[in-house]
This record gives sequence, structure tokens and C-alpha cells, in this order.
Amino acid sequence: MSDQTLDPQDWDRFRAETRDLLDHCIDLMQNAGERPWQHVPEGLEDSYAIGQTAAQGADVMDRLRTDVLPYHAGNTHPKYWGWVQGSGLSTDIAASMVAAVMNSNCGGRNHGANYMERAVIDWTRQKMGMPESAFGVFVTGTSQATAQAFAAARVKTLGKEVREAGQVGQRLTAYAAAGVHNATKKGLELIGVGSGNLRLVPLKDGRLDVTALKEMIAEDRAQGALPFLLVGTAGSVDLGLYDDFHALADVAAAESLWLHVDGAFGAWTRIAKEPYRSLSDGIERADSIAMDFHKWMYVSYDCGLCLVRDGEDLRNAFAARPVYLDGKERGVASGEPWFCDYGVDLSRGNRAIKVWMALETIGEEAFSEAITRNCDLAGFMAQEVQAQAGMALACDPVSNVCVFTAQTDLPAEAQSALNVRIAVELQESGEAVFSTTKIGDVEMLRAAIVNHRTTNAHIREAVQAVAALASA
Amino acid sequence: MSDQTLDPQDWDRFRAETRDLLDHCIDLMQNAGERPWQHVPEGLEDSYAIGQTAAQGADVMDRLRTDVLPYHAGNTHPKYWGWVQGSGLSTDIAASMVAAVMNSNCGGRNHGANYMERAVIDWTRQKMGMPESAFGVFVTGTSQATAQAFAAARVKTLGKEVREAGQVGQRLTAYAAAGVHNATKKGLELIGVGSGNLRLVPLKDGRLDVTALKEMIAEDRAQGALPFLLVGTAGSVDLGLYDDFHALADVAAAESLWLHVDGAFGAWTRIAKEPYRSLSDGIERADSIAMDFHKWMYVSYDCGLCLVRDGEDLRNAFAARPVYLDGKERGVASGEPWFCDYGVDLSRGNRAIKVWMALETIGEEAFSEAITRNCDLAGFMAQEVQAQAGMALACDPVSNVCVFTAQTDLPAEAQSALNVRIAVELQESGEAVFSTTKIGDVEMLRAAIVNHRTTNAHIREAVQAVAALASA
Repeated sequence: MSDQTLDPQDWDRFRAETRDLLDHCIDLMQNAGERPWQHVPEGLEDSYAIGQTAAQGADVMDRLRTDVLPYHAGNTHPKYWGWVQGSGLSTDIAASMVAAVMNSNCGGRNHGANYMERAVIDWTRQKMGMPESAFGVFVTGTSQATAQAFAAARVKTLGKEVREAGQVGQRLTAYAAAGVHNATKKGLELIGVGSGNLRLVPLKDGRLDVTALKEMIAEDRAQGALPFLLVGTAGSVDLGLYDDFHALADVAAAESLWLHVDGAFGAWTRIAKEPYRSLSDGIERADSIAMDFHKWMYVSYDCGLCLVRDGEDLRNAFAARPVYLDGKERGVASGEPWFCDYGVDLSRGNRAIKVWMALETIGEEAFSEAITRNCDLAGFMAQEVQAQAGMALACDPVSNVCVFTAQTDLPAEAQSALNVRIAVELQESGEAVFSTTKIGDVEMLRAAIVNHRTTNAHIREAVQAVAALASA
Repeated sequence: MSDQTLDPQDWDRFRAETRDLLDHCIDLMQNAGERPWQHVPEGLEDSYAIGQTAAQGADVMDRLRTDVLPYHAGNTHPKYWGWVQGSGLSTDIAASMVAAVMNSNCGGRNHGANYMERAVIDWTRQKMGMPESAFGVFVTGTSQATAQAFAAARVKTLGKEVREAGQVGQRLTAYAAAGVHNATKKGLELIGVGSGNLRLVPLKDGRLDVTALKEMIAEDRAQGALPFLLVGTAGSVDLGLYDDFHALADVAAAESLWLHVDGAFGAWTRIAKEPYRSLSDGIERADSIAMDFHKWMYVSYDCGLCLVRDGEDLRNAFAARPVYLDGKERGVASGEPWFCDYGVDLSRGNRAIKVWMALETIGEEAFSEAITRNCDLAGFMAQEVQAQAGMALACDPVSNVCVFTAQTDLPAEAQSALNVRIAVELQESGEAVFSTTKIGDVEMLRAAIVNHRTTNAHIREAVQAVAALASA
């Protein structure tokens, strides 16, 4: 009996209501430029409290229109460059709809979504220049990918026995440039290595100083620690800088370290035009790369990848199949390899379809151009900043990140206060979204442009708005 | 210029194509009963390979119809009871569409999706009977929730210093009933405690034997280990059994252990009718519960929750905010607490909206009835099995899991081979999906009914199909 399921009792009505909602969603996407971030009203959380009884489908859809959709996070707007937040794609709608209706668990078994995920991983592997031995697993994002890659690095270093024995009695040390993203610290904490065993290597010319690195490794060995992991950065969080991956790979090889690259956004210069593509030269020599598609490949949240040079290393860290998860030769339980053997998750939604839809519909070349344009826009922002009296760059942008202070003629503390005030006022007025970060003693305005909707005009308007607030 | 974005150049065409796809998706959902799992054709993975150039939107949508949607994982079909895989809800379509268009990063900042997630967590907290101090974080699923809860347990035991120091020099031990889900082992491996430090406690009357547990704890203390974690099971993977949570909570309190409950599916008997609700009595005393909404709350993959009795314990394990993630009083960067401080993920999509849409549209009472009905159906399956000559139950179902062998009049090995063959043949014919698991020496057929589309008739047909194959 139909009333014994949770499916709609009236499919026609359900269809009409869902169609209307789709139309509204497309309107919103089409008009993204008119919809900046806005502060949520008082009491919104209470208004979301789950009610005791069911409502009419149409009423809930109305609430989506009035109480939910308006309070997006802002990152779909063309003048949003805060933190590193992708701007979303039209293809996400179809991809998400199909993923919802298929409702595939991509942890394993034999069904299409797993084959699609493998195809998207293989495309990424090729773009990153990794050999055919490489494999990976889609995850929420770089933080997850980082922790899982580190777990693989530990197993590679200490052997599979460490899975059973635990990391007791052996201090492992890791290395990364000062300013490495916090995901590296959190990953080391989660797996029990400890963030105190992360050595922060000073920068030289904006890159991890390899000479200092070697000295630190030698010191740690002398003190009985076992160096196991070197983390390179493709696109530093503050300034969008890149380590010299060839130099890091040489040290990693000589010292038997696992080379991991935090490529959350920056790995994607691999498909940009020059001069940006060269920034990530040598990334193909990494043992693992953590990267997000929801940043600089623009797809909707969440969608990241842990890509490992030798898929077996990931498998050695995670594979475990009790009898109730046994694979079979035929039927639903066939279809090896299963993704649950390559990471933490046994239950996994279909993230790869967002990337597949985007690349198949929009095409790799358009992504290459958009990524390149974002870097050019950071350069254009730098020009506009330099044309304004009193403003100054933290440094010349190398990729898609432009950091500057609105007024150099102030003590550091006052500059910081001014920059923070400007950021907040631009956010609240809906004019533009910069985030802030500290460079030296000054908290500065920061734009990380991973936004395919941004034009030169948007950049110019935003810098002028900063100037107006700075002189007000 | 519009051609400088990745948005559609022709929004009207995009709208028409996406509408058509929506109609097709709704057709498929409406006809879920006609669409069992089917084997993917040879070469499907190659057909998914990312092309060099963009295609027409309509062509890609056609490929979704012909090459993607048909090869779902089977779990939307009313006769799918393999593993523990939810069947999906109509409300997932609107929820996923809205989440895609909003494209919110729920790691932090001030926007609606975070408030919605808090509201859904609060609803769950109330249903689980936890105090207002409880908080949590949506994750992919129970495997993630388990690892993160364990990390919180370690920090609670060893202090926040362990985050920096790493777990060096202190052997921690954990306890769970024999047959605990593999997620517990993998979680202990990931965080570096080591699965060898998980002590498997024998069962007594289907529940963790508390007397044996106490002895093991004493032994481990005597050997210098530090017992820190007790894992209870709400709904065991093999048979759907429940530990005695009051007894476990008493031991945990006396021994200063963190009590975690694996409630992947079984936690949801909390909202079922009696006699099933009582199965999870005492779950409110847990320090943490890992649970999935994509299993027995039926929403689409992936959607799990790590719920912790004292939210501060989770925060102590994960909070870390460098200056570029500083919260502000006003603007986009306000809105504390941020979910990134309560787990691994900094980039997080909006999972809670699937639960919100489902509960607001369908209503809690309908879920309560569906969950209750699933348990009743397991009981009905048991009756049908017992009515068949030669078939036998592994045990009387207590919740939604029914495990049986198709023919007792065979040696164990031959029984196993027969059961596996029957499972595969029913899967391949599209008749029904059972998985298999080993009970004692025999690999048996197993149905875990988390499917709101299943009726008594489906159960009867499936058991008769098993009987026909067993006697063939």
C-alpha cells in the first residue's frame, strides 16, 4: 500500500512543487550577482527547529524560498574572495539531483558511481602527472585527505604492523614550511603523531628553505626521532606561494620521507596557462596530494580528493574487510576495488559526479581559462591597489591571492583595526567579501580569487570601495 | 561579460534541459519498484572517461539518462536488504538541489546552513535523550564519527597536551563486544591507538558480558595499559543485537572510561514504538554516539552524525583557529560556534538539510512508524523462514535484522556455498538483495531492513524465491 512508504502520496503534486523549486533555484543562480551575503535575522535557528508534525510539501518548499535560500554563505557572488571558497557551477544542480535519486553508497560493491569516481580520479591523476600506479579516494576536502595521506605515510614508514600495535614508543617527526595550513597540524593530531612533532621550516624567498630543512632532519635523527613526512604547499593560505617541489622531492628521496603536497586550491594551476602552470612543477613527484574540487574547480561543497602515488600505500593503511563485507565474484558484492579499502569512510556519497558533469559539460579548456583568469585578476587587483594612495601590497601576487593593507601611514595596530573594519563593512553592505590575515605585524585584507564570476570591473569597484572606506 | 564565466551562455536552454532531467529523476523514484540493481555493462568505466572537449548540455544530460542513472546501487528498490543501506527519500531531491545552489561551506562563518545544522543536531540530541550540553558535527557517516569520537575520548583521557605531544609512550586500551563493527577497529588504527589494543569482550545472551569486561580491564591495568574507551553497540552488524547500555555506563563510570555507542542504524530505535524502542534504553548515558541518517532515517548518502554528550570534549579535541580563520564580532566571519572546531573537516557541505527537509515534510511520526514497521518486517521474515522446510534462523530477530540459512540439511561448508549462490542469483535476477554473513561456521543470508518501501508481500516473495533456489 502506498501509504506504507515514506514516498509522496500524490506524485503529481510533488512533481509540480519540485519543478517550481527548481525554477526558483535556477533564478537564484542566474542572478548570483544580485545576491551578496547577508546577515541572518535574529531567531533563524529557532525557526529551523524541527516541528512535531508533518507540513504540506508546498509549505516546506516555501520556507526553503523565504527562510533558507536567502541565507547562503555568500561565495556564489562575483565579488566574494574571502578565505578560499569556490563559487559553484550550474552543473552542480543536475549532478546533485542525480546523486540524490541514485542514492549510491560509494564505499564499495558493483555500481556505476564507483566506476565514475575511478574515471574522475584517473583524469586528475593524469593532470597531476602521476603514474598509473596512483589511486585515491574522494573525501569531504583537503583536511580529510591530509589526515588520510598522513596515516598512509605512517604505515609506509613503520609497516602495516603499526595498524595493530599503535604508534607507541616511536616519535615520528614531520616538516613543513612555516605558515603551512592548519590542516597539517590537525591531521598530525588526529593520527596521534602530535602537532608538536611538526617542525616548521623557515621560508627562503617564499619557499621552504631546503638547507634549514636538512639541518632540522639531522637534529631530529640525532635526538632519536624518526623523520617520516615532508609537507609541501601548492598555494600557501596567506599569499598563494608555492614550494619548490623538485627540491622537496630530492630531500624526501634522500631522507626516506613521504612527500605530501597540500594542494587544496593551488594544485589546480596544473591545468592553468603559463606563467601559472609552472608554479606547481614537480608536484608529480609527490607521494600524495590533497586537493579540493570545491575551491578552484568551482564545484559545490563538499568535494576533495586524496591522491596517492602508489594506490597500494593507501590500501595498506586502510583495507580491512570482515566477512560481512566480503567481495564476491558476481552480483552486487563484486566490483573490486572498493573505495572503503582506501580510506576511513565505508558510507560514501557520490562526489565525483559533480566533477564529471562539470568537465563533460563545460570542458577542461574552460576551466584552464577560468583558473588562469583568476590569477590574472589577482595581478589586476595588485595594480589597482598600487594605484591607490596609501595602500600597499603584502607582496606581488604569484597566483590567485592578493593581500594588501588599506593605509600604510598608521602604526601596525591601527592598520590592522582599519583593515578588519573595512572587511566587515564591505561584507555587511554586500559590496564585496575580503577575509583578513596577518602578514608580519599587520592584519591585512586578503582576496583569494577562486571565482569564475569575477571580472576586472568587480575588482576595480572593490578596491575603490576599500579606498573610500580607508579615507572616510 | 557572460562568456567570461563558467555559467551557461543560454540560461533558458539550461533551464529546459534541467527541468527535463528532474522529470526523469522523479519518474525513476516513482518507479523504484521496477528498477532493481543490475550489473554494469562491460566498458562502463571507459565510457565515463573525461573527454577533451565540452559537450552540449543536452547530450551530457542524455548520458545521465542512459549511462549513469540505470546503474544505481540497488538500494532504492523495495526488495533490497543487503548490508545496511537506506532507501532514499523524495525530499532528498529538493534538499540536494538547494544545497547545491546555496553551495554553503558549513565549516564555519555566519550563514543559514550552520543554524539549520545546529537545529537538526538539537532535535537528534533530544531524541537520544542527551542533555543540553551535548553537541556534535555532521560527517559522512559512522566510520568518520567513530574516529572523531575516539579522538575526543583520547584527549579527555590524556588531556589536551596529547594533541601536541602525540600518543607516545602510553598504551591505551579499548573494549567492545566481539563482533563489533569494523569501524571501531579502523578508528583505533587511524588515531594511532592500534586495533591490537581493542579487547574483544565475549557475549553473554547476545550482549557484551560485563563480568568478562571488568576482568579484562583489570588485566590491562595490571599490565600497565590505560583503559580509556568502551564501545557499545546499538544494532550489531550481524544480528541487530543491542548491548545493555545501563550496564556499560555503570562500568564506564566506575572505570573512568569513555562510553561510545556505535548506533549506525540501531540508534534510531529511539524513535520507534515498543517493543523496539526499549532496545536502546540507556543510550542517553553514552559519552558519544555515532549514527547515520542515510541508513535508518532513509535520507540519501552521505549523512552521519558524531554526537557528543559534552560538546566541549569534541571542541577540546579539534578546535584550532589560526589568524586566517579568526572569528569576528560582525560580518561573514561571525556566527560562532564554527563546526570546524568540532571535527576534522574545515570544508563541509550541508548534510543536515536532507534531514531537515525529511522531518519537516514527512514528519517524525511517519519515521517512527516506518522504523517500527521495518522491525515488524524482520519478524515477519523470520516467520516465513520458519514456515519453509529446511530453512533455519540464526536467531530470533530482535530489531530489523533477519539472518537465516536456506538449508540446514547440509554440512556447514555446503550450506555456506548454497547461501552465497542464492544471494548472488537473487541479486543478478533482480528478485531481491540479501547480503551474507558468517554465523558460527555457516555463511548465511542476511536481511537488514532499513527500507521504507518494503511490504509484507515483498518479504514473502523473497523468502519463497530463496526456497525455490534452495530446492532447485
